[in-house]
Amino acid sequence: MKSNGLVTDLYQMTMTQGLMRIGMHEKEVVFDRFYRENPFQGGYTVVAGLAHLIDFIQNFRYKKEDIDYLRSLGLFDEAYLTYLSRFRFHGDIYAMPEGTVVFPGEVLLRFHGTITEAMLLETGLSMILNHESLIATKARRIRSVAPHDTLMEFGLRRAQGHSAGLWGARAAMIGGFDGTSNVEAGKRFGIPVLGTMAHSWIMSFDSELEAFREYARQYKNPILLADTYHALESGVPHAIQVFRELRSENRLPRVYGIRLDSGDLAYLSQKASQMMTEAGFPDAVIAGSNDLDEYTIQSLKQQGCTMTSWGVGTRCITADGSPSLGGVFKMCAREENGHFIPKMKISDNTSKITNPGIKNVLRFYHKETGKMITDLVCLAGEKVPSGGDYILVTESARWRRKVLRADTYRSVSMLRPLFQHGCPAEGADVTLQETVDYASHQMNTLWPEYLRLMNPDIMEVNLSRPLQQLKDQIITDALGHGISDLS
Amino acid sequence: MKSNGLVTDLYQMTMTQGLMRIGMHEKEVVFDRFYRENPFQGGYTVVAGLAHLIDFIQNFRYKKEDIDYLRSLGLFDEAYLTYLSRFRFHGDIYAMPEGTVVFPGEVLLRFHGTITEAMLLETGLSMILNHESLIATKARRIRSVAPHDTLMEFGLRRAQGHSAGLWGARAAMIGGFDGTSNVEAGKRFGIPVLGTMAHSWIMSFDSELEAFREYARQYKNPILLADTYHALESGVPHAIQVFRELRSENRLPRVYGIRLDSGDLAYLSQKASQMMTEAGFPDAVIAGSNDLDEYTIQSLKQQGCTMTSWGVGTRCITADGSPSLGGVFKMCAREENGHFIPKMKISDNTSKITNPGIKNVLRFYHKETGKMITDLVCLAGEKVPSGGDYILVTESARWRRKVLRADTYRSVSMLRPLFQHGCPAEGADVTLQETVDYASHQMNTLWPEYLRLMNPDIMEVNLSRPLQQLKDQIITDALGHGISDLS
Repeated sequence: MKSNGLVTDLYQMTMTQGLMRIGMHEKEVVFDRFYRENPFQGGYTVVAGLAHLIDFIQNFRYKKEDIDYLRSLGLFDEAYLTYLSRFRFHGDIYAMPEGTVVFPGEVLLRFHGTITEAMLLETGLSMILNHESLIATKARRIRSVAPHDTLMEFGLRRAQGHSAGLWGARAAMIGGFDGTSNVEAGKRFGIPVLGTMAHSWIMSFDSELEAFREYARQYKNPILLADTYHALESGVPHAIQVFRELRSENRLPRVYGIRLDSGDLAYLSQKASQMMTEAGFPDAVIAGSNDLDEYTIQSLKQQGCTMTSWGVGTRCITADGSPSLGGVFKMCAREENGHFIPKMKISDNTSKITNPGIKNVLRFYHKETGKMITDLVCLAGEKVPSGGDYILVTESARWRRKVLRADTYRSVSMLRPLFQHGCPAEGADVTLQETVDYASHQMNTLWPEYLRLMNPDIMEVNLSRPLQQLKDQIITDALGHGISDLS
Repeated sequence: MKSNGLVTDLYQMTMTQGLMRIGMHEKEVVFDRFYRENPFQGGYTVVAGLAHLIDFIQNFRYKKEDIDYLRSLGLFDEAYLTYLSRFRFHGDIYAMPEGTVVFPGEVLLRFHGTITEAMLLETGLSMILNHESLIATKARRIRSVAPHDTLMEFGLRRAQGHSAGLWGARAAMIGGFDGTSNVEAGKRFGIPVLGTMAHSWIMSFDSELEAFREYARQYKNPILLADTYHALESGVPHAIQVFRELRSENRLPRVYGIRLDSGDLAYLSQKASQMMTEAGFPDAVIAGSNDLDEYTIQSLKQQGCTMTSWGVGTRCITADGSPSLGGVFKMCAREENGHFIPKMKISDNTSKITNPGIKNVLRFYHKETGKMITDLVCLAGEKVPSGGDYILVTESARWRRKVLRADTYRSVSMLRPLFQHGCPAEGADVTLQETVDYASHQMNTLWPEYLRLMNPDIMEVNLSRPLQQLKDQIITDALGHGISDLS
C-alpha cells in the first residue's frame, strides 16, 4: 500500500498541529492554484498533472511506520498523530482539464476542504502540477515549430529522477509528442514506445556495415544510426548499401532511414538526403537527435534541414530554459461561523497580491472563428454573461475596455469537478488519448501571436466587476483598519 | 516487489534481443561513465547517486506483468522474454564514492558485465547519477558562498516530480546543506527536517500578532514569517512584541527570529536587524527565502545582508542554470575469444572521442598542504607511481609537462568496488553522514581557484603514457584500415 502522507513540507505539519491544538484545524477553507508568469517567456502554459494528482490524493495517508517516524521527531503529540493516522481527503476540487491552455493570474484549480487538508496536500499538489504542466508546455513549444514531423521523447537518462522521466513522458504527449523511448511510460500510460539503436549496437560489431545489415535483417523498420564514425563517408554509404540489399531482396519497408546524433544536422541532413535520393531512396526518413529544443529545430528548419523526425531528450524532459513553474496555492476564503469570508494577501509587492473569494473562470470564444477571445475570473455566485453584450475590463489597465457584442461570442466555464467529497468526480477519469485530442484542439483556439517562441502576445485575464469591487473593498478596509486585519 | 526492468529506453531492448538472436548477448564488455563539461560553467562536479544506484540495480528485474506488456508490443520473441524474466545483474562495478569532487573526462564509474547488462542498465544508471550529481553540485556551489550559514532545502513543491524532490534532498545534503523541509526525505534518509510556518498560518488568524503569539506559545524555536503584510511596519514590530512577551515570561529560547520571503532581502534584513537589536534582541536569527541561489546569496552578502539562515527551494532542487548533467556511458573494452579488446569511439567531433581500454583513475595530493594536484587516467594493469618522480602530460597540450617530485605527493586510487558478482560490494554501504563528511573534506582539497562561481580554473585530467599510446595506436590503425574498423 502506497502512503504519500510524508510527501509534504514539515511546516505543513507543525502548522496543522498548531491549529488542532486550538480547535481550528477543521475550519473550511478555499484555496486557489494559479501562477504569475508563463515559463520560457512564452505566451501560454499547458495544464497537466491531474491524472497523477488523483492518484496522489487517493494514496495520501499515513501508515504506521510514517507515524512512528513522526513520533521520533519529538515535535508532535499523540492526539495529532492519531488524527494523521486517520487522515483522508474529504473535500472537493475543481480544475481546468489537462491539456487546457492557460494564462497568468487565472484560477487553474480550486480546492475546498479543511485547512488541514489544504496544508498537508499543498506541497505534493503543487509539485505534481508544476512539474507536469511545465513539461507539457515545453513539449508544446517544440511541437509548434514542427507541426507535421514525428516527435519522440528520449529524455529518461537525463531526467531529474525516475518520476520526472515517467510522468514527463506522459506530459510530453499532452504537449503533442508522438511517443517515447521510456518503456515504463509505455506500459503505464499506453504511450507508443519508439527507438531503434544506439552507438553501442554499432560498436558491438566489427564493422558499421555489419551492424546495419544485422539490424535490418532482424527488424522491419530500420532507422540506422549513421554517425558513429563518419556520417557522410561511412554511415550514409553503408546505410544506402543496406537499403539496396533490402530492395534487391524485396524487403525494403515503407518506413526506413537513418538517424544523425552529432555534427551539423542542417548540413549533414541535406547531404544525406541528396546521397539517398541519388541512390534511389528519396523516401528514406532522416531522424535527428542531440540536445534539440524548439529553438534548434526552428533554426535547423530555416537552414533547410531535411529531417522530419526528431528525438528530443534532455531539453524537453528537464524543461531547459525554465526548469520550474512557479504555480502557487493560496487561501481565498475561510469559514467563519458557518459563512465563507473572502481572504486575500495584500503585499507591498503588487505582483504577490491575490484575488479574494470563491471564484470561477469563464473563457470566451469567438463564435465564427472558434478562436479564444479572453478569460474572465469572476465570483462563483455571479450571474454569468450568456449571450448579451458584455464589457470586459483589464485589471492592470482599467481604462481599457473590451465590448463583447451579443451573438459574436460563446462562453465556457473552465473549472470542472475533479474530486467530490474526497472521491474522484464523475467524468474526471478521461483517457490520455482524449486529453491529447483536447490539448491539440485547445492550441487551435489560440491566434498565432500567442504562439511565438519569443515576445509573444500575453493574454491578459480580466476580473469581473463584482470581483474587482470586492478586492478594492478589502484593500480599502485593510488600509483603514491597519494593514494586518484583512478578513 | 519493485521491478525496475522497464526503466530503460526501448532501443536497449531491441538491441539486446538483436544480439541474443546471433548469440552475442553475453559477450563481456566494460563501459565507462564520464562527463564532458562541468554544470553551471563551474570548476567541479560532486558525485552523488550511488546509494540510489545500488537500490535500483538490486530491483532491476522483470515481473510477469512487465513481460506481458513487452509481449503485447509485438517486437519481442519468447526466447528473449524468457531471458528477461530471469535477468539479474551479475557483474562488477567500480565507482568514485559519493561526495568525491570530479572533473571532465575522467572515469567516474567502470562497469563490467555482459553487453545485455550494460545496455539494459544504461538508461537508469545514467538518469540516477546524472540527476543526483547535478543537485549535489548545485548545493555545493550554494554552500561555497555561505560557508558558515544554515542552509535549508525547501524545494519539494517545485521539484521535477516526486523522486527529484526525495533524492534531490539527499543530494543537497551531500552538497553541504543542513536539512530539508521534505518529510519523506527525513524519514527515508535520516536527514534533519526543518521549517516553521507559511503565509497560510498567518492568514488562518484574524491578525498577524495573534498568529505569531500562538505559534510562539506552542513551539519552542519560533522563526516567525514576517512579510505577509508589511515586513517593517507590521511583521518585525509584531515579532518584537512576541519576543518581549516571551522574555517577560522567561521563555525566550536560544534560537528564535524571523523569516523574510519577499522584497529586497538586503535592505529588509539590515533594517530588521537594526530594529531587533534596538529592541534588545540582537541574537534573533534572520532567515531568508524566495528564489535564492548561489548568485543571489553572494550578492546579498556583498550588500550587507544580515541573514544567516537560508531556505533554498526551486533553484537548487531543479539545478537552475544547468538542469541536466551530460554524463555518458560508453563501451571501452569488449571480449573477443576470451580476451578484452580495447574499444573507442572515433568521431569527427573531437570532443566525442572516448578513451579505450580498462582504466583506473589516480588522484595526486600534495603531501604538505593536502591539496589536490591533479588526476591521472591510466590503464588498469599499469604500474602506478608510488613515491618516485612522475611526469604528467596533459592530453590537450602535450608540450605541457608537470613533474611530480618524489616525496612531495601521495596518490590515491579513486575507483572503489560498488558491486561484485552482482551484489553490493563490501564497504559500499556507507552512511549518509560518512558521505557528507567525506564530501566536505573533498572540497577542502581544492584550491580556491576551482571554486569560483564564474570562470573557475578547469582541472585538466591527464592520461598516462601507456593509455595515450594505446589511443594513438587505435586511431592510426583505424585511419590505415578504413575508419569503420576500430577494434
